[in-house]
Amino acid sequence: MPEQLFTYQQLFDFAKAVFQKIGCSNEHADTATKALLSADLRGIDSHGVARLSGYIRLWEVKRVNATPDIKVIYETPSTAVVDGDSGLGLVVAPFAMQNAIEKAKNVGTGWVSVQNSNHFGIASHHAMMALEHDMIGMAMTNASALVAPTFSIDRMLGTNPICVAAPAGDEPPFVADFSTTTAANGKLEILQRKNADTPTGWVQDTDGNSSTDANILKKGGALLPLGGDREHGSHKGYALGAIVDIFSALLSGANYAPWVPPFPAYVPIPAQQPGKGIGHFFGAMRIDAFRPADDFKKHMDNWINGFRNAKPIKGEEKVLVPGDPEREFETERIKNGIPLLQAVIDDLKQLGVGFSLPFP
Amino acid sequence: MPEQLFTYQQLFDFAKAVFQKIGCSNEHADTATKALLSADLRGIDSHGVARLSGYIRLWEVKRVNATPDIKVIYETPSTAVVDGDSGLGLVVAPFAMQNAIEKAKNVGTGWVSVQNSNHFGIASHHAMMALEHDMIGMAMTNASALVAPTFSIDRMLGTNPICVAAPAGDEPPFVADFSTTTAANGKLEILQRKNADTPTGWVQDTDGNSSTDANILKKGGALLPLGGDREHGSHKGYALGAIVDIFSALLSGANYAPWVPPFPAYVPIPAQQPGKGIGHFFGAMRIDAFRPADDFKKHMDNWINGFRNAKPIKGEEKVLVPGDPEREFETERIKNGIPLLQAVIDDLKQLGVGFSLPFP
Repeated sequence: MPEQLFTYQQLFDFAKAVFQKIGCSNEHADTATKALLSADLRGIDSHGVARLSGYIRLWEVKRVNATPDIKVIYETPSTAVVDGDSGLGLVVAPFAMQNAIEKAKNVGTGWVSVQNSNHFGIASHHAMMALEHDMIGMAMTNASALVAPTFSIDRMLGTNPICVAAPAGDEPPFVADFSTTTAANGKLEILQRKNADTPTGWVQDTDGNSSTDANILKKGGALLPLGGDREHGSHKGYALGAIVDIFSALLSGANYAPWVPPFPAYVPIPAQQPGKGIGHFFGAMRIDAFRPADDFKKHMDNWINGFRNAKPIKGEEKVLVPGDPEREFETERIKNGIPLLQAVIDDLKQLGVGFSLPFP
Repeated sequence: MPEQLFTYQQLFDFAKAVFQKIGCSNEHADTATKALLSADLRGIDSHGVARLSGYIRLWEVKRVNATPDIKVIYETPSTAVVDGDSGLGLVVAPFAMQNAIEKAKNVGTGWVSVQNSNHFGIASHHAMMALEHDMIGMAMTNASALVAPTFSIDRMLGTNPICVAAPAGDEPPFVADFSTTTAANGKLEILQRKNADTPTGWVQDTDGNSSTDANILKKGGALLPLGGDREHGSHKGYALGAIVDIFSALLSGANYAPWVPPFPAYVPIPAQQPGKGIGHFFGAMRIDAFRPADDFKKHMDNWINGFRNAKPIKGEEKVLVPGDPEREFETERIKNGIPLLQAVIDDLKQLGVGFSLPFP
């Protein structure tokens, strides 16, 4: 499929203008656009500007509040619960992560669970806010149910990603950001565009049989937890997705399990709503709440170099450290621009027309 | 292989007496025995009394200190670093977890990283200490390197387990305890005894080729991270194992990556020792630091029942909640006794002879 390159600034100006058109303040529009476009820079194309119109559709059906009163509704010295007031997750998440960082400054760590939010983009954008403070950052979120737990036909969990970001010294930071499924939905979409099958272990059909149909979710099938099947540890991927759900929604009072509201605005919200909106969880741990930050960073450099220097399997170029591929994307795309598929460009042009905003 | 049943009390009395014989105080011997035997009760036979002689061998070569001065060497209101003074991990871990719980009482959460420890048994025993306080408990540990990261021939990480335990109301607690590999070493040992092959995705040979040889670790092969290969998300299992290593050892000053001391006393310690002993990490989060505990537990019950009532795949009995299988083992074994293999019985008898302690 043909692609076209855009500069970060071109996409930034357009997306920010769109957010302002729906009523976001200048500050919120800025925050949301940075969070959204961090996905494009880091090569997570499924979560970037390609989703802009999806967020706007949620605003149109009044599931996103463009002028939310985001606030802490409960707290202790190291914890808080934030009510996102149905705001964009792209705005609610940085607010909550900043709160976790402030608590970590005071008492060593900060942990913030969030209710009444919407999709927050990529987890790493929020977790990495901790890095400049010499803190370890964590971010996770639940999402609408596409994943069948081990032995189940029913979809009970979202792809529920986890990110942990840890600073290093001379080396770039360690940034692990991954869904708790074998493959995330974005990987299926790539295969759909190519008319290709999935590997086994990614999805199952509506009866719970192994499938390789990249379109199976539309036919009632499900994504599989990391591991794929019981023999390959899918009960561990299921447990990880469950932990994310508990931290993000059971602690905060958000919706959980099959009752999490879906991202596509045309998909109805589940009739039962045991909580409010979707849930996130953020953590910040000050390194020097454990040991001097310079000691930690020196050993992180040693750790990272140990892995970089591990012997690769024949045919593989090198052993990677979590965060390497995304950082390489970012370097390359800042320099050469961000490629968008024609279908995405058309969608953004269409979106711009509605707001009298020409897409570049 | 023939098995024989023993009561919990029989095994408790023997193991505690052994720990006292090597010089453990009455209190430490009690703590260590409870931690050790919790594995037998919960059906994790590889980590229970079958390992007793392994711990004693470490004491014989002076890698375990039977009278450790376990202490907090650094702290903030929500964090601490504990020096285990080369004590049994079975004793060091409960000390550190208790410290995390006390901090959570004060400021909402407590996070304790541990250096200079040894193997701590099963993670769930320690994490579950939080439950009676209406807290979520977390426990993880690094371990000697048996796992090759994605694309690597070299063993760089241990099986690095994670446990998260969360209280419920009328339902039993959620307890997820799992290694970050497709299968843990104990699973290989079971296949070795049966002379059976492993499924694909569990291990690789010394060149990094896929293997099904249950004895491959003895031939220079490696366990694979959860996911198995890149196509099935092994970079996620690798990232999880790495996170456990960073929290357990980089934060505390323990050894990490391929430099973690091995459990078998006859395997030499790696020449490079960038830290002290092996590392653990514990967390406790007070539920009512986020919301009233009764609200959380009511929703946990609803969450758990949602999963229990999910439709099972044809041929599967039911959808399980993390912790279900181990709890069923515990109920059954308290009632009927703990089965030990003849090889384990012989090993324990031999151990008893050395201490003039008859094995029951």
